Amino acid sequence: MSFPKVGVIGAGQLARMMAIPANDLGINFKVFAAIADDSAAQITNFTLGDFTDTQSVLAFASDCDVLTFEHELIPQNIIKAVEATGTKVYPRSDSFIYSQDKLKMREKITELNLPSPKWQKYDGGAIEISFPLIAKLPSGGYDGRGVFVINSAYELTELHKETGILLLEEKLNFDYEISVMAARSPHNQACTWPATLTIQTNGICTSTITPAPEISDELARKVQAAALEISAGISLVGVMAVEMFIVGNDFYINELALRPHNSGHWTIEGSQTSQFEQHFRAILDLPLGSTEMRTSYAVVGNVLGGEKSDMYRPYLHLMARTPELKFHQYGKEVKPGRKIGHVTLCGENLLQLQLEVNHAVDYMNGVIDE
Amino acid sequence: MSFPKVGVIGAGQLARMMAIPANDLGINFKVFAAIADDSAAQITNFTLGDFTDTQSVLAFASDCDVLTFEHELIPQNIIKAVEATGTKVYPRSDSFIYSQDKLKMREKITELNLPSPKWQKYDGGAIEISFPLIAKLPSGGYDGRGVFVINSAYELTELHKETGILLLEEKLNFDYEISVMAARSPHNQACTWPATLTIQTNGICTSTITPAPEISDELARKVQAAALEISAGISLVGVMAVEMFIVGNDFYINELALRPHNSGHWTIEGSQTSQFEQHFRAILDLPLGSTEMRTSYAVVGNVLGGEKSDMYRPYLHLMARTPELKFHQYGKEVKPGRKIGHVTLCGENLLQLQLEVNHAVDYMNGVIDE
Repeated sequence: MSFPKVGVIGAGQLARMMAIPANDLGINFKVFAAIADDSAAQITNFTLGDFTDTQSVLAFASDCDVLTFEHELIPQNIIKAVEATGTKVYPRSDSFIYSQDKLKMREKITELNLPSPKWQKYDGGAIEISFPLIAKLPSGGYDGRGVFVINSAYELTELHKETGILLLEEKLNFDYEISVMAARSPHNQACTWPATLTIQTNGICTSTITPAPEISDELARKVQAAALEISAGISLVGVMAVEMFIVGNDFYINELALRPHNSGHWTIEGSQTSQFEQHFRAILDLPLGSTEMRTSYAVVGNVLGGEKSDMYRPYLHLMARTPELKFHQYGKEVKPGRKIGHVTLCGENLLQLQLEVNHAVDYMNGVIDE
Repeated sequence: MSFPKVGVIGAGQLARMMAIPANDLGINFKVFAAIADDSAAQITNFTLGDFTDTQSVLAFASDCDVLTFEHELIPQNIIKAVEATGTKVYPRSDSFIYSQDKLKMREKITELNLPSPKWQKYDGGAIEISFPLIAKLPSGGYDGRGVFVINSAYELTELHKETGILLLEEKLNFDYEISVMAARSPHNQACTWPATLTIQTNGICTSTITPAPEISDELARKVQAAALEISAGISLVGVMAVEMFIVGNDFYINELALRPHNSGHWTIEGSQTSQFEQHFRAILDLPLGSTEMRTSYAVVGNVLGGEKSDMYRPYLHLMARTPELKFHQYGKEVKPGRKIGHVTLCGENLLQLQLEVNHAVDYMNGVIDE
């Protein structure tokens, strides 16, 4: 045995943050980037290529012991082509599909007897769900894209003309949205981290709190158990985010993302093992690391591009104000609404942590003037 | 303002570990490496060159906003040549000299009225210190190299013939060796971390414990105050290790290293701000981060090359045995006695942490059979 070579399809911020534990663990790591200025390509070894081109991906994978992903956009047939060469691909194509196809995910969750909102496949037939309902493109959407609130049969028909097959879901009047990160190895070792409250603004997660406050210990155990059931049920290898809606003391599975996830960024500082390190442990079939929290609360604020283009100058004020605040820049040019970084603060006093994180984010994106 | 460009002279493990906070903070970071396989060059942007060649260093520095160091070997005249161009160099040459010249360091510590072991400059005259004594080359030594235990005038004369001017020091019968990491910015903000016990084997640090157990609160405060006095006294900019001997309730300054240091590796997991992040904050004149500990104890074990050449296979056992253990590989080929990585464990029970870290190191270097 010697240090393995791991390649990741994609070179955004998730691949960028994967580089840290890769280097610490001595893993030979490289990213498959579209351009040299991609977030991860700026700071680690990369190969340029098009992830929709089979030959390019096969060439990249041929020098990898394990291939993995940081996004869901790579076509199934290309993943299967790599698998056919004998190179290990984790998550496997038949697991990753549940991250790529929301209809297949709903079927699987139902098969596992886990709770979904009422849902149906829609291709122009009877509508079994009352309005307003949620219509989703089965694949290709993220951060609220590909998701539509539909108020009438007319609206649905018009949308369907444009999109073809849709997944329809009951619009739940939920209390909270949470995410449970889970990891599983080929050896069948599995773990979860505590549930994370995800606070969304206009369909984009703007802040997270871990552990999710306001949910009972019993519900916290149930949602972790559900995440483990799904991990086993889909033969997950790697890390996965299970997004859920909370209504009272009940939970409903919303979406699966079979990769490191924004809702798991708190683990970098807040857990003994970060989601990025755990992903490597899992896909390399190494023993998983401890998911114990290193703090009472971890609060993350996502920095979305706003008025300010300079993300360095805010350090002068913010580092002086909050000496424990941790910055994570993604190396992306500021564009309105674009996720360009996040900040994390760990500690005991949740209210104080939230105030400081919110202040930092508002100050960085220009909501608060200097 | 925008994200600055920082270059570091040297591409060993310290530069490798500097890449992590550089990336997180969005700093444009590059290392000046001798070969592409250098520890840091493997994983981050680099320029190849010879740090004893003025033109090469000037060319590298010309594209940096700030130049810094990960070792003491770069000649003073080259540092001054960069300073003459107007590029910021931190630590400055007139501070860095105390990391490079042990005689100048002794003079400075004495001028600051801080305790040294008895010492003298020796160039063949009277010997004022009783045998056995320690003779040191004023510059160029590290990890016990360039340091000699001298038992007689004859031995000293023979050594002096080979080496020229020596620093002679009283051989203290000390109880412990400790290190205090300090940081200071051009703005004159300064901080220390808690003192670290450094456990040496054959002149090489093999393990550290933070905070140093067995020293009184009063002594802990005194050694931190001394580190701050030195920081100000030498106009430090960046981080520095102040190595000290402890005899009863007294301390004596041993050596200064004006850079991130092996005795500060515990800060990666154990402190709110790692020494590597703090070094950037200091040399960029940003507000310093909190040096609060994130754990009761942090124990580090240095992995020295031994019988085994495969440093990956031990993960199978060690990750299963100690799920909280953190590995830091330097990407170096295993050679006997060579520092190739370190492991860190944080927690409450010091004895347990020490046992686990010692087991891990012994298992990795082959002292314990599989």
